[in-house]
Amino acid sequence: MVLDILILNGVVITMEGKGLGIIEKGAVGIKDNKIEVVGESREVEKNHTAHRYIDATGKVVMPGLIDAHIHTGIGILKGLSQDVDNWMQKGLWPFTKALTQEAKVKGSMVNIMEGLKAGTTTFCDYDEPMLDIVKNHATLGTRARVAETVNEMPADLSGLKIGDVYPLDPSIGQQKLQKAMKLVDNWHHQQNGRITCLFGPQGPDMASKELLLEIKDLAIKHQTKIHMHVAQGDREINQMIKRFGKRSIQYLDEIGYLDEYLMAVHLTEATKEETRLLAKKGASMILCSGSIGIIDGIVPPAFEFLEVSDKLALGSDQAPGNNCNNMFNEMKFTAILNKCKRQDPTIFPAWKVLKLATIDAAKAIGLDHEVGSLTSGKKADIIIIDFNEPALFPLVNYPVRNVVPNIVYSAKGSEVETVIIDGRIIVDNKTITTVDERQVVKEAHKHAVEICNKAAEGITEDNNMFKMMQEGLL
Amino acid sequence: MVLDILILNGVVITMEGKGLGIIEKGAVGIKDNKIEVVGESREVEKNHTAHRYIDATGKVVMPGLIDAHIHTGIGILKGLSQDVDNWMQKGLWPFTKALTQEAKVKGSMVNIMEGLKAGTTTFCDYDEPMLDIVKNHATLGTRARVAETVNEMPADLSGLKIGDVYPLDPSIGQQKLQKAMKLVDNWHHQQNGRITCLFGPQGPDMASKELLLEIKDLAIKHQTKIHMHVAQGDREINQMIKRFGKRSIQYLDEIGYLDEYLMAVHLTEATKEETRLLAKKGASMILCSGSIGIIDGIVPPAFEFLEVSDKLALGSDQAPGNNCNNMFNEMKFTAILNKCKRQDPTIFPAWKVLKLATIDAAKAIGLDHEVGSLTSGKKADIIIIDFNEPALFPLVNYPVRNVVPNIVYSAKGSEVETVIIDGRIIVDNKTITTVDERQVVKEAHKHAVEICNKAAEGITEDNNMFKMMQEGLL
Repeated sequence: MVLDILILNGVVITMEGKGLGIIEKGAVGIKDNKIEVVGESREVEKNHTAHRYIDATGKVVMPGLIDAHIHTGIGILKGLSQDVDNWMQKGLWPFTKALTQEAKVKGSMVNIMEGLKAGTTTFCDYDEPMLDIVKNHATLGTRARVAETVNEMPADLSGLKIGDVYPLDPSIGQQKLQKAMKLVDNWHHQQNGRITCLFGPQGPDMASKELLLEIKDLAIKHQTKIHMHVAQGDREINQMIKRFGKRSIQYLDEIGYLDEYLMAVHLTEATKEETRLLAKKGASMILCSGSIGIIDGIVPPAFEFLEVSDKLALGSDQAPGNNCNNMFNEMKFTAILNKCKRQDPTIFPAWKVLKLATIDAAKAIGLDHEVGSLTSGKKADIIIIDFNEPALFPLVNYPVRNVVPNIVYSAKGSEVETVIIDGRIIVDNKTITTVDERQVVKEAHKHAVEICNKAAEGITEDNNMFKMMQEGLL
Repeated sequence: MVLDILILNGVVITMEGKGLGIIEKGAVGIKDNKIEVVGESREVEKNHTAHRYIDATGKVVMPGLIDAHIHTGIGILKGLSQDVDNWMQKGLWPFTKALTQEAKVKGSMVNIMEGLKAGTTTFCDYDEPMLDIVKNHATLGTRARVAETVNEMPADLSGLKIGDVYPLDPSIGQQKLQKAMKLVDNWHHQQNGRITCLFGPQGPDMASKELLLEIKDLAIKHQTKIHMHVAQGDREINQMIKRFGKRSIQYLDEIGYLDEYLMAVHLTEATKEETRLLAKKGASMILCSGSIGIIDGIVPPAFEFLEVSDKLALGSDQAPGNNCNNMFNEMKFTAILNKCKRQDPTIFPAWKVLKLATIDAAKAIGLDHEVGSLTSGKKADIIIIDFNEPALFPLVNYPVRNVVPNIVYSAKGSEVETVIIDGRIIVDNKTITTVDERQVVKEAHKHAVEICNKAAEGITEDNNMFKMMQEGLL
């Protein structure tokens, strides 16, 4: 058989088997959108020819990274709500209020490009209007598991004071659910299977019990998962107690939400017991170390989750919080923040966080039959990292191998040279092949300026960034 | 006057004045090795011409970053001691024992290149043999404040068990001090003033009181500073209590070491009171967030230090610990680790950590008369960051300016396009101009492999990385 692409002589990290399945001088062969063969270069070369060869000498070949939680629709707001208290209400809302659908879509494109160039091949994109945003994934060629965010909250919450119980309106929930169903009808398993859909209730505090149960039935019917914020901050817990008289995870347990259909995002405020309960019942956890660190100064209870389950994935969350949608950033912060939380340098070792961004993530989002490791039959989602950069020097394999620590603790994402998704080369020599990068950024920029001008009226003295600006500190 | 270089139309962050001194459409003019003019592009253009123009439209122009504590001599050991307990003894020592002088020097070169490409222009390099390592700074064109590490410890400590008091040998101290003095004689204020020397006792636990006092006299005589590890871990504190019957900072206070001559590195184990005492007495603190986070899982008491003094600088420490010698990494980790330590997202805001890597660092290391900000008369140490990358999108200035959060929380260092040191372009279009990068990395690589082969005999079952390797996890 003539392969389409044959990558030779790289350090191949397959993420297969009990360990990481590293092949020192390895090869990966691709036919159509799938991996055909993985093995020693010497052996693979003997039995295969290809239309295109990639020499990966001095480079690392590994599965594409999975960003299990990202809101690309607010990517255009990067850097506009940092170092503030009440991040969402005081920092973000004046800007989100000003967002147009077009700005969301244009900003989303740049946001996905950022992740893609840093080796992210699968995005669990959770936003609205997903019917429009999903087209960016189709255009760019990225793999995506998309969810339309569904809640029962009115668009304008400007009259709301911090601590007030949100008004919920079932008619709004139904309108949004209609869009979510249309998304599933139009996009589930489309683009050669690259695009699949999830259901996306925004949080237990933002929808009625009835709506959540309706969504659960739909998830079962379509055999897909529910992507949802859970215990994402004291704001949510306060809302839950005021509205339902109980904390989020107890409530979700009682309504039958804690099972393998649930991908629970954040768990910032979950206690150890709540975290273990959620893990034991089969739900996945999505850990957003960078974003929760910067927004809340909190390290979520991932260690407790891992004591019970390995269905843990990492997410970059969003640009105006994290300011960075890059899974290398998430791997490094996850390792170091957890070491600091426990004052133990041996926990969250490099090999473990690498799994959290690849094979474990694939399990957590229900896509491990297709991606997350390099083995014959899986979809060809592969990245190649150039190790000739001074920052990644040296690369040795005896008496210990340092490739994995150097990926997690040294690489920044900018060393990713090639990104292959579904068998297609989407990033070649660090340049996106499917769109004109500079043009996309330039166009989106006009929208960013427009949004900021509109948002100006909502920015007042109680916004920390505004204060810093007046003091000449920004 | 005809300038040598005129940078136009950039967002210029001068770091001058009470705030950050940002000029939206700014210009910086360079003549010889100094900044001649800083101002609005429109104005500067009217009155100046130049031999070379750099158009910085869509880019940021700011002072070069200062790495206030780095051991470049162990750069060749990157990734070889990660996720281990007893980092130094079990992880590092088998490798440092195998290090040759040549390997140190070759590895140092790659290590400096990593920092340089990520915008570091001043390195407080603290290692041995500095008489050889310093030549790398001369060759590359970097600014350096170098110290030969001085201690009284025998080279071979392999017989030592964890917890044993180190043997100290005054004759070894004198040999090393001779080298330090030779370094000062040969290199202090050399290379057009780019290279200056500090004195570098390795820590209060590794030298006698007599040697420390001798060094203090020398620092006064040469009007330079003392760069020293202080309270760098429980190992040091245990040694101090066993040998001197008191903790490091109390001891240093009693021997007259706590004053403006001291740059105290780490303070990992310093109490709040000890930290405040040190700050109050005029000593600087060097904070190595990335390295201490990964090695010890600790966030040092920088917040307490800042309550008393602004002489706080950041350091990347070393490659086998931090695994990353990049001041963008240090800025981001400093902000987020401290937010998490205090569970307060408003502390260590982006503008503050940017100061810690520029003007505050210059004060802390005693070089603020020359570098750390952009103003007429200072040395021309300048970096230009390309903001057209998707990861740095968007760049807006109303109603709030997001350039500073985007530098600290989004930039990875790989966006640094131009580095000017002492008026000379050392990195041009992301490529080092003074050496052949690939060739340097390739040569150093041979030494890395050699060192690792030699170190193999010292690596045993009690090394976590060795265990992980056997389990297929590395």
